[in-house]
Amino acid sequence: MLKLDLSKLEGVISQDQINAMAPEVEAAHAKLYDPAAPGSDFVGWVRLPEDYDKDEFARIQKAAAKIRQDSQVLVAIGIGGSYLGARTALEVLPIDGPEICFVGCSLSPNELQKVIKKVEGKDWSINVISKSGGTTEPAVAFRVFRDLLVKQYGEDADKRIYATTDKARGALKSLADSNGWESFVVPDDVGGRFSVLSAVGLLPIAAGGIDIAELMGGARDAMNAYDKRDMSNPVWQYVAARNLLYRQGKKIELFCTYEPSYSFIGEWLKQLFGESEGKDGKGIFPASAQFTTDLHSLGQYIQDGERHLFETVIYVDDTGCDIAIPYSDDNGDNLNYLAGKPLSFVREMAFQGTLAAHQDGGAPSVVLRLDKMDVRALGELFYFFELSCGISGHILGVNPFNQPGVEAYKKNMFALLGRP
Amino acid sequence: MLKLDLSKLEGVISQDQINAMAPEVEAAHAKLYDPAAPGSDFVGWVRLPEDYDKDEFARIQKAAAKIRQDSQVLVAIGIGGSYLGARTALEVLPIDGPEICFVGCSLSPNELQKVIKKVEGKDWSINVISKSGGTTEPAVAFRVFRDLLVKQYGEDADKRIYATTDKARGALKSLADSNGWESFVVPDDVGGRFSVLSAVGLLPIAAGGIDIAELMGGARDAMNAYDKRDMSNPVWQYVAARNLLYRQGKKIELFCTYEPSYSFIGEWLKQLFGESEGKDGKGIFPASAQFTTDLHSLGQYIQDGERHLFETVIYVDDTGCDIAIPYSDDNGDNLNYLAGKPLSFVREMAFQGTLAAHQDGGAPSVVLRLDKMDVRALGELFYFFELSCGISGHILGVNPFNQPGVEAYKKNMFALLGRP
Repeated sequence: MLKLDLSKLEGVISQDQINAMAPEVEAAHAKLYDPAAPGSDFVGWVRLPEDYDKDEFARIQKAAAKIRQDSQVLVAIGIGGSYLGARTALEVLPIDGPEICFVGCSLSPNELQKVIKKVEGKDWSINVISKSGGTTEPAVAFRVFRDLLVKQYGEDADKRIYATTDKARGALKSLADSNGWESFVVPDDVGGRFSVLSAVGLLPIAAGGIDIAELMGGARDAMNAYDKRDMSNPVWQYVAARNLLYRQGKKIELFCTYEPSYSFIGEWLKQLFGESEGKDGKGIFPASAQFTTDLHSLGQYIQDGERHLFETVIYVDDTGCDIAIPYSDDNGDNLNYLAGKPLSFVREMAFQGTLAAHQDGGAPSVVLRLDKMDVRALGELFYFFELSCGISGHILGVNPFNQPGVEAYKKNMFALLGRP
Repeated sequence: MLKLDLSKLEGVISQDQINAMAPEVEAAHAKLYDPAAPGSDFVGWVRLPEDYDKDEFARIQKAAAKIRQDSQVLVAIGIGGSYLGARTALEVLPIDGPEICFVGCSLSPNELQKVIKKVEGKDWSINVISKSGGTTEPAVAFRVFRDLLVKQYGEDADKRIYATTDKARGALKSLADSNGWESFVVPDDVGGRFSVLSAVGLLPIAAGGIDIAELMGGARDAMNAYDKRDMSNPVWQYVAARNLLYRQGKKIELFCTYEPSYSFIGEWLKQLFGESEGKDGKGIFPASAQFTTDLHSLGQYIQDGERHLFETVIYVDDTGCDIAIPYSDDNGDNLNYLAGKPLSFVREMAFQGTLAAHQDGGAPSVVLRLDKMDVRALGELFYFFELSCGISGHILGVNPFNQPGVEAYKKNMFALLGRP
């Protein structure tokens, strides 16, 4: 299990202050089970690692096996919660099998063109992921790639389209039914940003050769462990700490990792927290950074700039690969004192040195530490943050499960586009 | 030339307020030419598009031509300002020739391993970029790749190493001299984050087949245009606006683009502004977003969250590619009203709709609009932001050209590593 370390908050918030948050956290946690609480129609994710549809899960595994057998490329079409979770898993964990390309998450012709070139002359399939089927970005991309698939395979194209959508209604569900596409369900009670452990995330993840039963297992372990209703629960500690920090004027949370391939964890977290908490004029602004890379860009600001930020650092000891620093005869760079040491040792010292420097500078850190990043650990990480986010939003006093502000630009856009 | 549009700030700051900033902006602009101003030793970038070393420039072009002729991969080694500018240009503009891989910008064994695999069985060269040669990340990466190069080419390896470093001193300069590597200069009066138009950026950029004379030409046009000392100067307007916004509590600047391949513009800007302004407890926090992608993640927060941010949107009309939205017989997604329209039209409407929505929501936008993104436009863009940043830092009352805070984590790290 991950280890939470709040010792780098010392001098900013105390253990007593954290402990004093227990009644607030308890009440907020209870709201996730309260049918009268705001957003209570969207808490299906809370028990999802146990209460998922077992038959559908088996169908997902079967579909993934078919894709892995008959496709060199899987074009996954979705935006926001319909791609961030899957993409995170596929970047963080080792994968094999078909190349998985994400489209429909921008309005960039270049992005479409790139993937059009990738599928040329290949065997490929589509997983289109949209609750309604009406979101512009994925709908346009689906038109383009459905056209290509039909040109290549004729009627057999219908056997290569997998639709993840509403169980009964909407444009995509209708299309799937009338064309006989295999379809999977975006559950009614699970919002997009909480949907990585539903068919939304699971089919592309399984197509990448990741064991989704293990992913659910890791999440289930977390579900059981983090349901504990006292301050020994790391979720409670994290939630208490970040709300205390926010009340002290720390209005930016910088999610930091030390491995470039983990950068999508930050992207997933930005949606999770930003959409859940950023409303009613409130909420911590979620940003992300890759260390040590960004210590040479944002590092100066973090160390000495405006004192309105804290860090949540996800540090992984074993990232699946290590390299020994070579010995150099000329020692021109004076690094021979490190010769033979693993690069991970230098990274660990950079991590420790950074925590201390930023604490000294008034940019305190929450630390989440994992022994290694494997599929169970990722399942646990997903659940840890989902639960933290749900509870945290209730402490903030918002509905953590709606996103009314996302419609504003769309409404303007549709008017400008002249949608009938 | 780019067009600056401040109309989306209406209701937050007025044209009168902007005009009233003229004396402050004028004084700050003059400081760039004042030998008594803080950081006056590091303003070589101001006249660089004209006053660069022409002989070295010709050598850069010649070295790039050699790399393009004899290498399938160029391993560019550098961190912070020693990679961000070059990588931005290479992602934003169309390139050809050798694949250019960046290493030494993290402590990730996975990243090194990936590039080690890329060079296997290929012809390749190294451009190592470090003022001192002593920065840990690039120094470690250089050890690893220098070793590989020597194993592959023996003594001829020395003809495949290009060192961009101090003109006279430091570990890397000594190594370059004693091994006969061709070397290029990191100018003494140009800090890393302002160095893209020096050899630091130019050699990798030229190796990608980009016309660096045109890049300098675009920057030179900008240098001449933006030296104008009144409020008709877009640089002055931008600088006035962002400082007024900051004083009103807009403490986050979100740099937004509408094309995924432009995301490194945001990374380059984060270093430029973060390192220049983030000091003495002051400075706007620089963040970045890709639209419309992140409208489905950060969009809710921008629309309705804490009102402490503004956007600087870089919008490009012609991104070099377009796609017509296909007609669909079944019109299952109800998008036939867009059939035949270019995707760029939808993007433009999304852009307009978003500007209006965010203005309504209290998240105002500065808009920088470019007809097309080509090498001259990029040169102009680089210079526009460098000049804006230098002037803006002086208005903030900091030394825009130092970065004392970057040393804090390194000092701790070296102690932990037991450096002799």
